[in-house]
Amino acid sequence: MRIGIVAPPWLPVPPPGYGGIESAVDTLAVALQAAGNEVVLAASDDSTCPVERLPGFPPADPTAVGSTLEELRHVALAYPQLTGVDVIHDHTLAGPLYRNRPPRVPVAATVHGPFVPAMLDVYRAMSRDVSLVAISHSQAATAAGVRVSRVIHHAIQYVDVPVGAGRGGYACFLGRMDPSKGVLEAIRIARIAGIPLRIAAKMRDHSEHDYFTEVIRPLLGPSVEFIGELGTAEKYDLLGGALALVNPLQWAEPFGMVMIESLAAGTPVVATPRGSAPEIVDDGRTGYLRDGEAALVQALQRAGELDRGLCRMAVEERFGPERMASEHLELYRRMLGGNSQPQASVV
Amino acid sequence: MRIGIVAPPWLPVPPPGYGGIESAVDTLAVALQAAGNEVVLAASDDSTCPVERLPGFPPADPTAVGSTLEELRHVALAYPQLTGVDVIHDHTLAGPLYRNRPPRVPVAATVHGPFVPAMLDVYRAMSRDVSLVAISHSQAATAAGVRVSRVIHHAIQYVDVPVGAGRGGYACFLGRMDPSKGVLEAIRIARIAGIPLRIAAKMRDHSEHDYFTEVIRPLLGPSVEFIGELGTAEKYDLLGGALALVNPLQWAEPFGMVMIESLAAGTPVVATPRGSAPEIVDDGRTGYLRDGEAALVQALQRAGELDRGLCRMAVEERFGPERMASEHLELYRRMLGGNSQPQASVV
Repeated sequence: MRIGIVAPPWLPVPPPGYGGIESAVDTLAVALQAAGNEVVLAASDDSTCPVERLPGFPPADPTAVGSTLEELRHVALAYPQLTGVDVIHDHTLAGPLYRNRPPRVPVAATVHGPFVPAMLDVYRAMSRDVSLVAISHSQAATAAGVRVSRVIHHAIQYVDVPVGAGRGGYACFLGRMDPSKGVLEAIRIARIAGIPLRIAAKMRDHSEHDYFTEVIRPLLGPSVEFIGELGTAEKYDLLGGALALVNPLQWAEPFGMVMIESLAAGTPVVATPRGSAPEIVDDGRTGYLRDGEAALVQALQRAGELDRGLCRMAVEERFGPERMASEHLELYRRMLGGNSQPQASVV
Repeated sequence: MRIGIVAPPWLPVPPPGYGGIESAVDTLAVALQAAGNEVVLAASDDSTCPVERLPGFPPADPTAVGSTLEELRHVALAYPQLTGVDVIHDHTLAGPLYRNRPPRVPVAATVHGPFVPAMLDVYRAMSRDVSLVAISHSQAATAAGVRVSRVIHHAIQYVDVPVGAGRGGYACFLGRMDPSKGVLEAIRIARIAGIPLRIAAKMRDHSEHDYFTEVIRPLLGPSVEFIGELGTAEKYDLLGGALALVNPLQWAEPFGMVMIESLAAGTPVVATPRGSAPEIVDDGRTGYLRDGEAALVQALQRAGELDRGLCRMAVEERFGPERMASEHLELYRRMLGGNSQPQASVV
């Protein structure tokens, strides 16, 4: 099968640092190709994903995230070059609603964000002739009135991830410097638990800087350290040395990439049972899902006892690229077998 | 004719303060209705434009300007309600590229911004099946490779604008607190000319506040006064009392609404000959078009001698709503007579 994939224009594929969508696109593209398909990727010019790439795109522009003009331009450059594909899988918001789609090529779109009201209006319109992929059952359950064709969890190229021994004597937080990610709660939990915490976070936007300066920086100290935004190798060093990832999410995150990254490194996850967390973490086996500070503190204190081999095995069994590719291929075949309309709803 | 108009979602139509696009949409909608057409407007819920309005839109959200999600939502709410119209005239960017357009209804789109490279890519794609309206010949001349169907200047409901006597003993600047608008140059020119300057400007965004604080505020003094962003009545008071509008634009503005507002109030315009200025101002008759500080200073010193009646008359003859409506109706009839493709290029 020849598959056209459209990535967003904001970050390269794969992303050098933070970037959940672009990581997922990279993993999917490589895995589809490894499964014997031709993959052609529309992505920013500085992308390095080792599949065929469409020419003519400018380099990634993270400062333009969410800009209609930049996204429409990206889509207007991509679609005329996608006439020779069997299916299109679009990861942008504007692309699946773009007018000049090649005729008779079915389109799938992955919903990467939460179904807030404005999103619901847009996806209701989109689901008329696009097969929508949700990234967790938690997310799909909030898709009121939107036809979701299939839930497919993200994956990780775990063979590239070294399993760490977890002997660094610290817990870690990885994410964005944003209240929704629970960085403040992570600090409180680690401090009460008496376990040092290392915080690695994306911090580029104004709001992220402000939150750090006003709320987080005053709480740093010898046992709570901020180490900036990490590249891939440093990230897995941090995870591999940690006795646990502390992920006290304050919102229903559609899919928590960081949790499968942590498990791939052998590191158990201590999380609130929100969003996709219960679909990723096996409570009592690869981590603990707890609500409330006291319960999370206790969970963190016990997390070091969990079997790191089981954490890694959970990823190999359930969050590997082959599984992600084969579930997508099943969907694409269903789209090609019938018409481009969603043919079943899982919700 | 029944005409569907789609306004952007960022400001109400008409706008209570600054808002060139929304002013133009308001003037056009009212004038088309006055010319005997049915007009139905898709605009934010807090709009007051006295034509039929589509239901179901949230109130305007100026903080979301340029957001793909908000614009796609607006478009997804508008288009399914536009099935009963003869033509659609869309003033958003995403709308004319939206997939689920009612069949066989031709679409026109006004290009409100400058043709920067990303815009050119988007409008090249758009002009496949949309009739594009440019708002000045200056703007149309930069539309490399884009088919422009017609140039139509904006208009103003001049009957509502009181003609002022220009006896306030000051010049004025009206615009956005942005370097491109020439507010710094206006201060320099007025100061050297020995004429007091009153500055009214939109100042809401971070960058506008920063520019004011860092560059403009230190230059204020007894003869150079900043009076904030004005409502409509205050704006015409300011213009009517001014001996001239100082508009030393530093960029090729596609259409300068403020210049026809000034002329409608009887107030001559001293401007740089950039963008649309030469299409609006008759040099030596309704103002002066000059490059360079010394020439602009001299022009400002002489502007008070120009005939304010001629300024107003220029607007009545060339920038009235009837002219704007009839030129649009000619375009719509041409679109209906043939197909929805642009049928002629003026560039």
